[in-house]
Amino acid sequence: MKCFPKEVYIERRQKLKKLMGKGILLFMGNEESSMNFKDNWYPFRQDSTFLYFFGLNQSGLTAIINIAEDRDIIFGDDISTEDSVWFGAHATLNELSASVGVSSTLPKAAVADALKGVPLDQLHFLPPYRPENLLKLSEWLAISPAAVSKQVSDSFIRSVVSLRSIKTKREIEEITRAVDLSVKMHQVLMREARAGMYEYELLGMVLKEATAGGGSVSFPPIITTQGQILHNHVYSLKLADGGMLLGDFGAESDMHYAGDITRTIPVGKVFSTQQREIYQMVLDAYQVAVQALKPGVFFKDVHLLACRTLAERLKSIGLMKGDLDEAVAQGAHALFFQCGLGHMMGMDVHDMEDLGEPYVGYTDSLKKSTQFGLRSLRLGKELEAGYVLTIEPGLYFIPQLMDQWEAAGLHQDFIDYKKVAQFRDFGGIRVEDAYQITTAGAEILGVPLEITIPEVEGVRS
Amino acid sequence: MKCFPKEVYIERRQKLKKLMGKGILLFMGNEESSMNFKDNWYPFRQDSTFLYFFGLNQSGLTAIINIAEDRDIIFGDDISTEDSVWFGAHATLNELSASVGVSSTLPKAAVADALKGVPLDQLHFLPPYRPENLLKLSEWLAISPAAVSKQVSDSFIRSVVSLRSIKTKREIEEITRAVDLSVKMHQVLMREARAGMYEYELLGMVLKEATAGGGSVSFPPIITTQGQILHNHVYSLKLADGGMLLGDFGAESDMHYAGDITRTIPVGKVFSTQQREIYQMVLDAYQVAVQALKPGVFFKDVHLLACRTLAERLKSIGLMKGDLDEAVAQGAHALFFQCGLGHMMGMDVHDMEDLGEPYVGYTDSLKKSTQFGLRSLRLGKELEAGYVLTIEPGLYFIPQLMDQWEAAGLHQDFIDYKKVAQFRDFGGIRVEDAYQITTAGAEILGVPLEITIPEVEGVRS
Repeated sequence: MKCFPKEVYIERRQKLKKLMGKGILLFMGNEESSMNFKDNWYPFRQDSTFLYFFGLNQSGLTAIINIAEDRDIIFGDDISTEDSVWFGAHATLNELSASVGVSSTLPKAAVADALKGVPLDQLHFLPPYRPENLLKLSEWLAISPAAVSKQVSDSFIRSVVSLRSIKTKREIEEITRAVDLSVKMHQVLMREARAGMYEYELLGMVLKEATAGGGSVSFPPIITTQGQILHNHVYSLKLADGGMLLGDFGAESDMHYAGDITRTIPVGKVFSTQQREIYQMVLDAYQVAVQALKPGVFFKDVHLLACRTLAERLKSIGLMKGDLDEAVAQGAHALFFQCGLGHMMGMDVHDMEDLGEPYVGYTDSLKKSTQFGLRSLRLGKELEAGYVLTIEPGLYFIPQLMDQWEAAGLHQDFIDYKKVAQFRDFGGIRVEDAYQITTAGAEILGVPLEITIPEVEGVRS
Repeated sequence: MKCFPKEVYIERRQKLKKLMGKGILLFMGNEESSMNFKDNWYPFRQDSTFLYFFGLNQSGLTAIINIAEDRDIIFGDDISTEDSVWFGAHATLNELSASVGVSSTLPKAAVADALKGVPLDQLHFLPPYRPENLLKLSEWLAISPAAVSKQVSDSFIRSVVSLRSIKTKREIEEITRAVDLSVKMHQVLMREARAGMYEYELLGMVLKEATAGGGSVSFPPIITTQGQILHNHVYSLKLADGGMLLGDFGAESDMHYAGDITRTIPVGKVFSTQQREIYQMVLDAYQVAVQALKPGVFFKDVHLLACRTLAERLKSIGLMKGDLDEAVAQGAHALFFQCGLGHMMGMDVHDMEDLGEPYVGYTDSLKKSTQFGLRSLRLGKELEAGYVLTIEPGLYFIPQLMDQWEAAGLHQDFIDYKKVAQFRDFGGIRVEDAYQITTAGAEILGVPLEITIPEVEGVRS
């Protein structure tokens, strides 16, 4: 099992104790997840917060920090002698725990006892996103599953978010490894994609590259000739000359840090004139956004800057019109750019999404907008040095949305629906890379992947 | 979505209704499974029984068969107009349901109402193996999660097992497709494995082959230089000349039928003398077992026949000794062959394992043995034409087990522990293929993969 040196985990737990001040902190490790019968498992994924504070990538673990007693305990069961016949020899829980600086261990069954009698207002746990952990909490706390979510600890979430948001040098190195592997995965796609292939064949190549590099994927890959379908996890279509292929995927490293990159390439050797035009608009928005990154800037403003850039470019070819300040303020550009400019990235590809966007991407004074477009922006708050985030502008021509908006008469002052209709079958383009916020501004993570039109066409030819 | 013609599903449901006679049958489709936050999903896997009777490979569905009213209903929600922006246009639930011969559909939220007032003894459901389905049942039936398992329907399980156990011609074709893809995955491994490579690199190649062939894997692949660790899902070791590589994996086809094949190959071009000797013993047991397959034979007896063959061969080189009838009856051979000879295979790689071995592999009159070795045999009962099963004998030299048995003085009349010690670092060998039971005997499924020593060495050289 690959971990950081134990001092890293000890320090993280010390910082957390200081932030929380008091209470019993409960960390739910993940269990194995069943596919079609109990013992047929998906690849194991440990909970990221558990990994962050306790480092052990093994199913069936729980941990407790008792702040008053300054005691960290890991609960779990050693593999039985009988099981070692089937699974091989394993390090004991004591050995594993020692490797992350924890000297107290107890069997799994002791968690219920350890929590018995702890008043609910002194017990802190994070929102469960897996039903088995919800069931465990319900049993341990002797409350109904529906009542569990009301007991989630606001202060625990805030403390964990404040620590995990700022990436250390060591973490930046690990994210960079994940990004570099993601780059390799993309290079395979950029080199190999040809007319006549099926999307699933390319998925196979990408999965191979991640696995053969010692990692896996940080989220289900998007590999699609239908780039305008934003969350497309179907891989059944055939690549055709004249079309484009959008690949949005990344590796998860063996230390469980994520990469996340998007490129859109021509299926043939070069982009068409229209594709080139739209691609350059997206790239302009990307570059404007990257230039604007620095501590103290609100990411919501960077997002709006990118939107404004896209709106200007769309106006230059007649798809948008009128006062662009007003258009962007009213969200008219969201006909073409329906989603957010980026998100935090770390151990999770949408880092800490399980803890909640109001904490991770927004603050008590900056709440998420409800406007179409902005309401899909996962990150809005002021940037700090040490944040890692993605920049991923795009332009998407979605026939259903065009029809809805036009029928509803939306934003007629800003959108020329007749001209837009000419792009009905265009598809969608997105580019995406990950950046770290530094004291001076921002730096791209990993070996930069081909992104300009000449660079992309250079790989394709 | 790929389905059989609707008549297939209508006929299956008719047969089920006839077997059950009366009652309300509840079919729990699967939900998406979260990895590290709610919306980051593992690849979706529908419940196999749901697929068998209702064919729809989509999350969030439930179905009910009301036998008295002869009414089949599928519950689910159509994608919203807003969601179609993100996920693209989708067929409606009505359209999907019509494609599997179901004309009644209702929204997801209507399940609770449909079950309200149904006495528990008239409501039939299968054992839930996913916690989210356990939670739903608990809510719908207004009983605690712990109480749900007591309400599982014995007659429903028996009826489903009796139908799914006998594979139709159409199903055999689908399993054959899965096996053929599994063969291709193995051929890649057999061709490409070389000293100096890591196990995970080969895992990458195997995953690529499954995916690029339009399928996925039917269970987490075993690709290991440590073949004696029976359930090994670690891929971190380097292949070294002189060693062996055991690959146990298979494809799941796009129609969700499984393949499952094992081969053990030399890392170099040829087996060593000792490896060749042990390999041939395993192959002999395989061939003896295959010859014995026919309707009316108890699979437990085929297993014991294979064990007897292994024991004879082990005696010939001095690892076993004494009266072999007695040795096999007492389970002494299980020092070398700790697991079962095979299992049912169909939509699940261990077919219907979620429904329980006492129903799938055994009967009321033939219960599973508790003897070490036999207690890991998943299938014991009398074979019928239409069964599909695997044959997978092996010989495994497990140091922990040797030490345990020798220290406990087990089976000293049948085992020469001194000689056995010479094989302490040997590893393990297994071969496995899938067979269908025919009226005449048995036939291998799919294109046969190289298995004899000359065949395997032919691929390797």
